[in-house]
Amino acid sequence: MERTLYEADHESFRQSVKEFLDREVQPHLEEHLEQKAIPREFWLEAGKQGFLGLEIPEEYGGSEAGDYRFNAVLTEELSKVNMALPSCVGIHADIVAPYLVHLTTAEQKKRWLPGFCSGEILTAIGMTEPSGGSDLAALKTTAVRDGNEWVINGSKTFITNGYSADLVLVAARTSPEKKARGITLFAVETAAEGFSKGRKLDKVGQPESDTAELFLENVRVGDDAVVGEVDNGFIHMMQWLPQERLGSAITNLAHARQILDETVAYCHDRSAFGQSIGQFQHNKFLLAELVTQVDVTQAFVDQCVLAHMKGELTPIDAAKAKWWTSQVQNDILDACVQLHGGYGYMNEYRVARAWRDARVTKIWAGSNEIMKELIGRDLGF
Amino acid sequence: MERTLYEADHESFRQSVKEFLDREVQPHLEEHLEQKAIPREFWLEAGKQGFLGLEIPEEYGGSEAGDYRFNAVLTEELSKVNMALPSCVGIHADIVAPYLVHLTTAEQKKRWLPGFCSGEILTAIGMTEPSGGSDLAALKTTAVRDGNEWVINGSKTFITNGYSADLVLVAARTSPEKKARGITLFAVETAAEGFSKGRKLDKVGQPESDTAELFLENVRVGDDAVVGEVDNGFIHMMQWLPQERLGSAITNLAHARQILDETVAYCHDRSAFGQSIGQFQHNKFLLAELVTQVDVTQAFVDQCVLAHMKGELTPIDAAKAKWWTSQVQNDILDACVQLHGGYGYMNEYRVARAWRDARVTKIWAGSNEIMKELIGRDLGF
Amino acid sequence: MERTLYEADHESFRQSVKEFLDREVQPHLEEHLEQKAIPREFWLEAGKQGFLGLEIPEEYGGSEAGDYRFNAVLTEELSKVNMALPSCVGIHADIVAPYLVHLTTAEQKKRWLPGFCSGEILTAIGMTEPSGGSDLAALKTTAVRDGNEWVINGSKTFITNGYSADLVLVAARTSPEKKARGITLFAVETAAEGFSKGRKLDKVGQPESDTAELFLENVRVGDDAVVGEVDNGFIHMMQWLPQERLGSAITNLAHARQILDETVAYCHDRSAFGQSIGQFQHNKFLLAELVTQVDVTQAFVDQCVLAHMKGELTPIDAAKAKWWTSQVQNDILDACVQLHGGYGYMNEYRVARAWRDARVTKIWAGSNEIMKELIGRDLGF
Amino acid sequence: MERTLYEADHESFRQSVKEFLDREVQPHLEEHLEQKAIPREFWLEAGKQGFLGLEIPEEYGGSEAGDYRFNAVLTEELSKVNMALPSCVGIHADIVAPYLVHLTTAEQKKRWLPGFCSGEILTAIGMTEPSGGSDLAALKTTAVRDGNEWVINGSKTFITNGYSADLVLVAARTSPEKKARGITLFAVETAAEGFSKGRKLDKVGQPESDTAELFLENVRVGDDAVVGEVDNGFIHMMQWLPQERLGSAITNLAHARQILDETVAYCHDRSAFGQSIGQFQHNKFLLAELVTQVDVTQAFVDQCVLAHMKGELTPIDAAKAKWWTSQVQNDILDACVQLHGGYGYMNEYRVARAWRDARVTKIWAGSNEIMKELIGRDLGF
Repeated sequence: MERTLYEADHESFRQSVKEFLDREVQPHLEEHLEQKAIPREFWLEAGKQGFLGLEIPEEYGGSEAGDYRFNAVLTEELSKVNMALPSCVGIHADIVAPYLVHLTTAEQKKRWLPGFCSGEILTAIGMTEPSGGSDLAALKTTAVRDGNEWVINGSKTFITNGYSADLVLVAARTSPEKKARGITLFAVETAAEGFSKGRKLDKVGQPESDTAELFLENVRVGDDAVVGEVDNGFIHMMQWLPQERLGSAITNLAHARQILDETVAYCHDRSAFGQSIGQFQHNKFLLAELVTQVDVTQAFVDQCVLAHMKGELTPIDAAKAKWWTSQVQNDILDACVQLHGGYGYMNEYRVARAWRDARVTKIWAGSNEIMKELIGRDLGF
Repeated sequence: MERTLYEADHESFRQSVKEFLDREVQPHLEEHLEQKAIPREFWLEAGKQGFLGLEIPEEYGGSEAGDYRFNAVLTEELSKVNMALPSCVGIHADIVAPYLVHLTTAEQKKRWLPGFCSGEILTAIGMTEPSGGSDLAALKTTAVRDGNEWVINGSKTFITNGYSADLVLVAARTSPEKKARGITLFAVETAAEGFSKGRKLDKVGQPESDTAELFLENVRVGDDAVVGEVDNGFIHMMQWLPQERLGSAITNLAHARQILDETVAYCHDRSAFGQSIGQFQHNKFLLAELVTQVDVTQAFVDQCVLAHMKGELTPIDAAKAKWWTSQVQNDILDACVQLHGGYGYMNEYRVARAWRDARVTKIWAGSNEIMKELIGRDLGF
Repeated sequence: MERTLYEADHESFRQSVKEFLDREVQPHLEEHLEQKAIPREFWLEAGKQGFLGLEIPEEYGGSEAGDYRFNAVLTEELSKVNMALPSCVGIHADIVAPYLVHLTTAEQKKRWLPGFCSGEILTAIGMTEPSGGSDLAALKTTAVRDGNEWVINGSKTFITNGYSADLVLVAARTSPEKKARGITLFAVETAAEGFSKGRKLDKVGQPESDTAELFLENVRVGDDAVVGEVDNGFIHMMQWLPQERLGSAITNLAHARQILDETVAYCHDRSAFGQSIGQFQHNKFLLAELVTQVDVTQAFVDQCVLAHMKGELTPIDAAKAKWWTSQVQNDILDACVQLHGGYGYMNEYRVARAWRDARVTKIWAGSNEIMKELIGRDLGF
Repeated sequence: MERTLYEADHESFRQSVKEFLDREVQPHLEEHLEQKAIPREFWLEAGKQGFLGLEIPEEYGGSEAGDYRFNAVLTEELSKVNMALPSCVGIHADIVAPYLVHLTTAEQKKRWLPGFCSGEILTAIGMTEPSGGSDLAALKTTAVRDGNEWVINGSKTFITNGYSADLVLVAARTSPEKKARGITLFAVETAAEGFSKGRKLDKVGQPESDTAELFLENVRVGDDAVVGEVDNGFIHMMQWLPQERLGSAITNLAHARQILDETVAYCHDRSAFGQSIGQFQHNKFLLAELVTQVDVTQAFVDQCVLAHMKGELTPIDAAKAKWWTSQVQNDILDACVQLHGGYGYMNEYRVARAWRDARVTKIWAGSNEIMKELIGRDLGF
């Protein structure tokens, strides 16, 4: 199915992203794996190209396209490379960005945004805690007022970019008695005293992404670290979750589509019992099902992108897009592994890594169970 | 997800269809069931309203909107009533119509189209044969040249509108040695000598639809019964299959969505163990999954409608829409039955009839297996 | 997989059941359909053959084999004919029987059991109510003490054998304040004043089974109608549910296996595109999956039968057998319909009727959701 | 469901295996991971305990129990530790053993079996080739007669134990024109000139298992290396495949059951939103489904073990057991990962490693597609 979402501008932007990836990223993927992180050179180069500031006003170094389709194109092209790139870039440029643009003072913008755009200030967002999972109301990290300062204590886990980040948006409880309505967001520099990083977590997939635990022990920040309103952090987070989930959905599908395309090619090339393996009716029908799933799902995701452009994407539609695409991605990649036979189990094959990379997408960004809970509530249950 | 397919014109047309259905159809549904057919009064009334001539030029009594979205609106509204209505109307107004408009002579048009639009000439299409199923190349009905006439012999089965039809498009083999490329379409009046109708088939569902076997024994027709080119019937049929499959897809989804909406309402109303049954997390998550499936699928179907409007719907995309929507419909309705508990097994409950009605959609209009074969071939296998 | 459950005795009993079915039942199946009930002649003949008294002591006219494998053989053979026969016979001979044998006084036994064995007293069990579904604690039928009598008021629905039954085990609330622990079982003659039967319910499948609503309006019974202990009906029902669910499981699998066998034969006989349809790899793999499911499931059901013989079948294992087999049956039959193409949608084809017949098995005898609730609780949740 | 397969002897053997594993294996699992192989110490200790010689006659150092249930117990207990152990031990003690016992001369037995039992001669089997996958008829490794010797050339891949093995059963083509009927088995010492081992393959899971490529370049062996009859290797392999597939099935299920047990415990321990996560109805029902799948499948596998004990396990039943259990295992483990939330994606969590370990079971030992092909053929298609 021909997509109708993009126009000429987007396709020419896509071309520039592709060239950047071919030139600056593809040759270094092995290093990403070895370092278990995306090196700072990548960020600085991406900054130079203007890829980190799509959401940022021009006066602070960004390009503020005001057209989410550019974000979508960037996300798609990164997702064709692997899952870690769009995840790490997305956290910074797509997820943290709106907080720093829409909830900040002019002073804060000046302090953070130029470095944010150039790749010198790499960001992360610290919501999830070891004990809490998806239950934000159970947040244990606290920020206690002490004179003119806040003293933050707690720990965060599964933080993408956590090991490399210079600045982390930390959700902390400021009014213990007010449950979800007593949470505040703080932008905390990781160089602050009392802030420490655990090791890079050893994950099933996405080894190129530096996921880490973060520990805050009597970290002192001033009011100029507060992002948005005090006690209003939960609402702030709710507001930007749809964009995060839409970004996840775009990645899920673009990554799955890319691996499926490569698998179709493999099924042409690989023979068994005297014919290409794609000609076996079982495989042929399976591939037919998979490409249908991709096309059907793409239509929905593209419609979500359009809605988001118009500021009309509901949290419920974002939740639908998130859980559905992650399920579809996992189903497709499992089938792609199977079509590769024994090679599908070898890490040197991209399909094997893709399968491992993708598993987390049913869990992160709000687990699929949480998505279904939200959608079910929206039905009145 | 807000749909963006329709404009004000379509919605006002929808309103007129709804009023017609409320007034002329809903009060008579019991009669449809008893007669195992949609009575002629329906057709004549629908004709008066202009619903049968959406594809027909104005000079022959139609409205020729040239915008398939009106067909889609009509199909959707009929599908909210049951499956038999859109099926019977679709065969006539959506599937047979293009043959009679695009492949006919002016004389043929004059002979058939006014009655077609008014509901006085009810049509059907005779492709499937008892021995052949989806294998058109195995067609056994023959049309043999005898002087200026063709003598047709054979039988057809599973013919929607078959019992009531006045005019049937019959696919017959005219060049036995040429396999698929030796088939010709004939428009045969069912009043012709030698043409007889079997009983109304006793189906699992859609009892309101008069599906029948047709027998042709030395039926003689002239060249003015030939629709399109001699020996080119297979190509003609291939050309119009996408519209048939798109119509199926629209019906599949609109019907499933309607029953799902009613089931959501039922899950609010029905209580067990002290709460509405939709509040049980299992049911809540299930309903969340079902509404997601509907929304995701709608985006794809709507995109297909748009493509078809522009004359760009490929047979492959139509095949994807057909198999996917029929699978989705069946999955959704099975879940809806389960959510109704014992009542879901009672024919007086609409969900029970809907479940039975829908089963055939994985089989008809080219079985889902044939769809996957087509899609697989398009991948090069 | 060769089954090891049965010995020579069971196989010779199977032979006698088969002969009975061939002689007395197969020729009359059309009448069962027309009458929407299994005629009394069937019951009397089955009684003569001793098939109704497998659980009943010899002194009351039964054979009391004390080996549930005979019940299993009978159930399997009935299930090869259709779903309604094992359902109706099972309610009487397998489900009601234990109550009348194990919870009754000698006087009650003498009154009911001889007719029970001969087929002159046909029984049913009245648990489910229109408002209650699976929630026994919400039972609304009441039995109020009035002098030496009980006055019963209420209604029951979905009662198999309900229209034909002479004697119905009715669950009624005797201690309103005690919830599940205030329910008593009464054996009520349907000829009693105030007892009336609604119409035979119009079901999706199993038309040969006379499922009915029952209404009790000031029905007066004496203490000699009480089965088991007053207020202890819930416990009594819990005790015999495993046998009911095991019987369901045996039927589910035997019926599915039979239809699958017939479908395999059909796939040998039916050709398309020049080969038998079973040779298409998609169908071949599908059939391979289905026969595997049957064999895997049979091993479990047979193990349950063995455990039940030894009095060791737990309610949890019975629940597992019930939900799993009903799911497997439905999945298999849906695939069998699809393999029959258009014929699978015609009621004259057995596979079509089987598909409709089977749907209720995911709902009745404790819905599959209730089964999962029980199993989940057993895990400590 | 209480299993009835084992008797007291087996349970006491199980106890000894457990103690061995606790004492000799559990403390060294980290080393297995680091070395990407199971160290020779393990094999020597296992040999001392008699675990490697269950299939070997006593005169050659084994215990030849002649009761496959002991193999099954050993496999189950190894599988509770991880997937690599039963895989590596199984290749040696369960898969290679029958070839060396049943197809060998007394001289060969004397040469190989004592070391085989003691763990000094570690074995592997070399069937799969880089180009061939499941298609044995396409075997490219050749053994050409040269004087009194055979000269073997070719390469093998995905060879479990391949890196550590001392002796490899190599399938080689001896009669090129005879397709599957021209293959011979050779027991080749890996120390032989021309025999080389590739690196340990970097797999998605089972890092403790040393899977390797093997290269044979003009490796010369005498007739005393021939195992079984010349040109009859395919038949020999067919004969022992059922035991291999049964072993796979036992492992699949025992491993899945163990991880599921641990996950049930986790769902008791872990809380969210104020209750244990297993109490959420969605999770509760899911766990109920998973334990049902385990119990149902166990009944079938146990029946296969019994049949195999009696020498009656058919290749078709073994194929059913293999594909079904691997599918069930993967489905269960995917659900277990999801129930662990973010921790399920961390390699330090056993469930994460189990999920990766298990993926290959749908591919190896004859891919599930090959299993379905065999079963389908057995149905006559």
